[in-house]
Amino acid sequence: MEPIGLAVVGAGYWGPNLVRTAQATPQLRLEWLCDLDEERARGVLGPYTTVRATGSYEQVLADPAVRAVAIATPAGTHFDLVRAAIEAGKHVLVEKPLTPSGDESAKLVELADAAGVVLMCDHTYCYTPAVRKIRELVRGGEIGDVQFVDSVRINLGLVQPDVDVLWDLAPHDLSILDFVLPEDVRPVAVAAHGSDPINAGHACVAYLTIWLSSGSMAHVHVNWLSPTKIRTTVLGGSRRTIVWDDLNPQQRVAVYDRGVDLTPAASLGPEERRAALISYRVGDVQVPALPEHEALRGVMTEFAAAIAEGRPALTDGRAGLRVVRLLEAAGRSVAAGGARIEIGGEQ
Amino acid sequence: MEPIGLAVVGAGYWGPNLVRTAQATPQLRLEWLCDLDEERARGVLGPYTTVRATGSYEQVLADPAVRAVAIATPAGTHFDLVRAAIEAGKHVLVEKPLTPSGDESAKLVELADAAGVVLMCDHTYCYTPAVRKIRELVRGGEIGDVQFVDSVRINLGLVQPDVDVLWDLAPHDLSILDFVLPEDVRPVAVAAHGSDPINAGHACVAYLTIWLSSGSMAHVHVNWLSPTKIRTTVLGGSRRTIVWDDLNPQQRVAVYDRGVDLTPAASLGPEERRAALISYRVGDVQVPALPEHEALRGVMTEFAAAIAEGRPALTDGRAGLRVVRLLEAAGRSVAAGGARIEIGGEQ
Amino acid sequence: MEPIGLAVVGAGYWGPNLVRTAQATPQLRLEWLCDLDEERARGVLGPYTTVRATGSYEQVLADPAVRAVAIATPAGTHFDLVRAAIEAGKHVLVEKPLTPSGDESAKLVELADAAGVVLMCDHTYCYTPAVRKIRELVRGGEIGDVQFVDSVRINLGLVQPDVDVLWDLAPHDLSILDFVLPEDVRPVAVAAHGSDPINAGHACVAYLTIWLSSGSMAHVHVNWLSPTKIRTTVLGGSRRTIVWDDLNPQQRVAVYDRGVDLTPAASLGPEERRAALISYRVGDVQVPALPEHEALRGVMTEFAAAIAEGRPALTDGRAGLRVVRLLEAAGRSVAAGGARIEIGGEQ
Amino acid sequence: MEPIGLAVVGAGYWGPNLVRTAQATPQLRLEWLCDLDEERARGVLGPYTTVRATGSYEQVLADPAVRAVAIATPAGTHFDLVRAAIEAGKHVLVEKPLTPSGDESAKLVELADAAGVVLMCDHTYCYTPAVRKIRELVRGGEIGDVQFVDSVRINLGLVQPDVDVLWDLAPHDLSILDFVLPEDVRPVAVAAHGSDPINAGHACVAYLTIWLSSGSMAHVHVNWLSPTKIRTTVLGGSRRTIVWDDLNPQQRVAVYDRGVDLTPAASLGPEERRAALISYRVGDVQVPALPEHEALRGVMTEFAAAIAEGRPALTDGRAGLRVVRLLEAAGRSVAAGGARIEIGGEQ
Repeated sequence: MEPIGLAVVGAGYWGPNLVRTAQATPQLRLEWLCDLDEERARGVLGPYTTVRATGSYEQVLADPAVRAVAIATPAGTHFDLVRAAIEAGKHVLVEKPLTPSGDESAKLVELADAAGVVLMCDHTYCYTPAVRKIRELVRGGEIGDVQFVDSVRINLGLVQPDVDVLWDLAPHDLSILDFVLPEDVRPVAVAAHGSDPINAGHACVAYLTIWLSSGSMAHVHVNWLSPTKIRTTVLGGSRRTIVWDDLNPQQRVAVYDRGVDLTPAASLGPEERRAALISYRVGDVQVPALPEHEALRGVMTEFAAAIAEGRPALTDGRAGLRVVRLLEAAGRSVAAGGARIEIGGEQ
Repeated sequence: MEPIGLAVVGAGYWGPNLVRTAQATPQLRLEWLCDLDEERARGVLGPYTTVRATGSYEQVLADPAVRAVAIATPAGTHFDLVRAAIEAGKHVLVEKPLTPSGDESAKLVELADAAGVVLMCDHTYCYTPAVRKIRELVRGGEIGDVQFVDSVRINLGLVQPDVDVLWDLAPHDLSILDFVLPEDVRPVAVAAHGSDPINAGHACVAYLTIWLSSGSMAHVHVNWLSPTKIRTTVLGGSRRTIVWDDLNPQQRVAVYDRGVDLTPAASLGPEERRAALISYRVGDVQVPALPEHEALRGVMTEFAAAIAEGRPALTDGRAGLRVVRLLEAAGRSVAAGGARIEIGGEQ
Repeated sequence: MEPIGLAVVGAGYWGPNLVRTAQATPQLRLEWLCDLDEERARGVLGPYTTVRATGSYEQVLADPAVRAVAIATPAGTHFDLVRAAIEAGKHVLVEKPLTPSGDESAKLVELADAAGVVLMCDHTYCYTPAVRKIRELVRGGEIGDVQFVDSVRINLGLVQPDVDVLWDLAPHDLSILDFVLPEDVRPVAVAAHGSDPINAGHACVAYLTIWLSSGSMAHVHVNWLSPTKIRTTVLGGSRRTIVWDDLNPQQRVAVYDRGVDLTPAASLGPEERRAALISYRVGDVQVPALPEHEALRGVMTEFAAAIAEGRPALTDGRAGLRVVRLLEAAGRSVAAGGARIEIGGEQ
Repeated sequence: MEPIGLAVVGAGYWGPNLVRTAQATPQLRLEWLCDLDEERARGVLGPYTTVRATGSYEQVLADPAVRAVAIATPAGTHFDLVRAAIEAGKHVLVEKPLTPSGDESAKLVELADAAGVVLMCDHTYCYTPAVRKIRELVRGGEIGDVQFVDSVRINLGLVQPDVDVLWDLAPHDLSILDFVLPEDVRPVAVAAHGSDPINAGHACVAYLTIWLSSGSMAHVHVNWLSPTKIRTTVLGGSRRTIVWDDLNPQQRVAVYDRGVDLTPAASLGPEERRAALISYRVGDVQVPALPEHEALRGVMTEFAAAIAEGRPALTDGRAGLRVVRLLEAAGRSVAAGGARIEIGGEQ
């Protein structure tokens, strides 16, 4: 099959990674790297390339060899760039967040549906072998009911001028949550607290509590100010618990057959029942073998496959919209001093 | 100097540790181990001891050789036992929490003051070499202003029939916070979320957000259901950041000279200012050598010294009261769905 | 059954641990702590004990209530003390090494046999849950044939005035090896290199290579001068590999189903065969749940059981003798510049 | 300055890395990728390149635009390829080992000297920030005299058809040792033990003991069969000790101010002196901040700089020769059952 002609838009922080992986994906044919600063685009491509640089997005959209665009520009520009691409009949891969607004994100989903093009969000982590394995374990019932989720993503990060730490880092955690939780376990409300101790103009440390439709709770801690890196997610289940430590390449995912059991007993009074029926399981830990492959390669392959097969991508616009709705609600909660905000059913 | 006659009250989970360390403290003379179940007390003492077991608290309080008691009974019994001891003119060391009620705790503080006896809380962690070093670093100004505190204490814990995870585990974090923060940085409000996914009758997972008088935020995550243990506290400062990993005996405390700086510049517009003046320091990490000694030995020595010198203990009844006030407020917040609760000035 | 009367001999570094665990073992009745320095013995027992201190070994051996002794004195004194105890009809538990001489150790084994008393070596590590599990895995065939063993035991240790690092630390590794390897896989030769970079008078760093009867090799690295602690043993097997990291309490033993396979193929030439038939297995890792109990408690229980049942202890005098023979051969190799020294069959 | 025209030779395991980093080095201009299998070369370059592929080494050497070659072919081909390049007046960067023979390696050094071209070995690790820092600490006297070196490099590796584990992995450790030790501390003898438990035809596990001219000892453990990766080097010094854990990106290099001191005292007898004067320093640990950059970029930059400045590279042919002499001696020791082999002064 003919490779799909692609243009990458944005030669900043993430764009070069899209350029590199697109070139390594046989199903794609990289035609352009586009950036307002054409020199920067040229610099990213380097002196040995046959790929063309341009400063004109119009030129890219007008090129019939370009069937798809991959957009890695600041979030504030996503709505206009994605809409223009859809209107030009191009398939779109876009960095997280889809846009900074739920309503605008919903609009893009709608436009892409109407135009019959693929709208995919680059929720990169969902394409890591670790997260794929976690999804398989959770959705396959291996861990039982999800009892709690705790996700920590902290490190000395780039304090962004235009977005706070929630919008910068939490999309990772929220897109992973969206990806791995069973279809019928959905966020129903959030509360969030943020703090700006360095007077950066917006939150640099934030905590997000999410109530799930199943009655359990998920929690996310994102922090730009920690000099030590932690990227750990614990998914506690009724049967097993998953610990994902993304900074431990020798043991990213561990499945613990240890836990607390509480056997219901109809015949006992409530107090006795609890005392009597809590027991501890001290079982083995299993560390599944994970294949080694780069997540972004998986993103590119899925984008190409969704286009070729005319189907929604695994992390489609709707997934991106759900993440944006959560972030919006979290922002409202921070503004309201941590109040609980319900997630609307409109997603 | 004559050793101080001591009775340990409670031969359950923690009592045996008090018995062991009291016996190893030359400034104390262990006279009794008292438990309602005298057999259990006898069992704890073992077959080789000269220490006496008793089932009668009255007998202990009536013994003039007993100048002090160390109480390790369930929290619900603390008020009556401590009051009786104070009224009998005994000095008191009591397990955390001081009592389950702020008002009762305040009452005990008042009674001890009036009676002129030492009332000390066994905030054991405050006597670890790690926490002493952290206090020294924070109060000595080594880390600059405290910008954030994040404390995680999770493991497969004993699900308690009578207390939730906040009352069980958070006293550790809150007493440490009380101990290490500068005197003028105090909690002003809390919000807390709890979750009971195993239907134990009270929260098994809880998150606590604490607003400090300095404007920064502290956060505590306590969890009984995690099959893997994490006990990590990060104290971010304007000059340095402390990472305390209590499960890493080879490197419990690390001081990072890495961080984000934001230099204020009056002459720039707000947006420019931020972009221009955020910079990253990538400095060395220092791991201070810590002496090796058991924290509970330090508790016993401090208790004896406070009695001998007629002064408040480092972790006195007031410290215990402050912790209880925070826990009470956290409980109210959980009940109110995570609402922010102000901490009264009555402490 | 009546508890077995026991005397502990030696109140130095290890003796207090024997005293503590003996007191916690219902099958034993601790009668004496004996040390040439009676004051030291009294200090170890503390002010609350009913156990007697003495400076006279004769008094201990003459006491008919004493049926067994546990000896924790310097290695140079073991021969005389153990012989005297055997001659007095006492059962003996003795610290490693059994004695500093193979011939003397053999003599003690012979004497104990003749007297019909238990002679047991305190190879403490063999009674840890980790080593018991490893023995079970290795001897049960779980890992297949043992292909290599690598053991590292380094830390900032007490530089001993009278023994080198091989005699001080390697008994741990060698007794473990003796304990876990299948009965038919035995050391046949050793070579050792030692180094004394601080001019302590004997080796402070040493490497020991052991050829096994199966054709594979074991290697031990012991080092007193390392400021960081490492205690890791890898047992590579044809089916699985065990990694034991004794400093990782959350994951001491891990069983890797990963390895290199080499399928023999009669029909190929030697070069082709190798290239063609090496393949890699990337399987899961299993971390078995281990019970939590103190190894020295297991030593005491086994000592009591061996006495009660009139059978050799799991780590009997013969095991101690085998370890001493290896250490002697290693010493000869060091003296001969690392020459390979055969292990005699006299063990 | 005009970039230096470069050809990369060999499109196997390592060649693609040379291709990638050469393209990112402004001082170089990549002209060719040469491989006997021209298709493979073309595949490595990918579909977007302006770099030419060729199957003809002659064509490369005949091209006047090519001033330098970087050779990443099997070791057995190095002698002929390097000699041809030198004879064609090209500068040469060659993978480790320089050649499989000391005499041939010496010949190449001689030829390069005579021709006035740069002969550089790609001892990649020497260009990591960690190893550069270690060299600075050791040679700057920060750690005092080197008392011991212990290097472990084990993982599930590619069992090579043509070289044993010593020739495959130990060049890393030996080149690092050569790079960081002070100029006047040189290997004087080696002993080595190898083991081939999987019947691969040569050693898959090997231990190398190296006597240094200073009287201290270095030791290297290389192992292809371990399912868990360890890459740790400890350099013990009289003042401080360096621990380099290459798999811990957050703390690769740690400098321990902990150790054992032995103060010589003329007035005491030898035994007393030792007992009296051994003392332990328990000081802080310092983790130096290391810049983040790719080692191979440093290799390329150094190669270009050595050419431009007409000077030997930091890791020149002589360094490569010293490593090969050690490996040869180690091989002779393995063949002689672990005998100590002196290193000739001919290096």
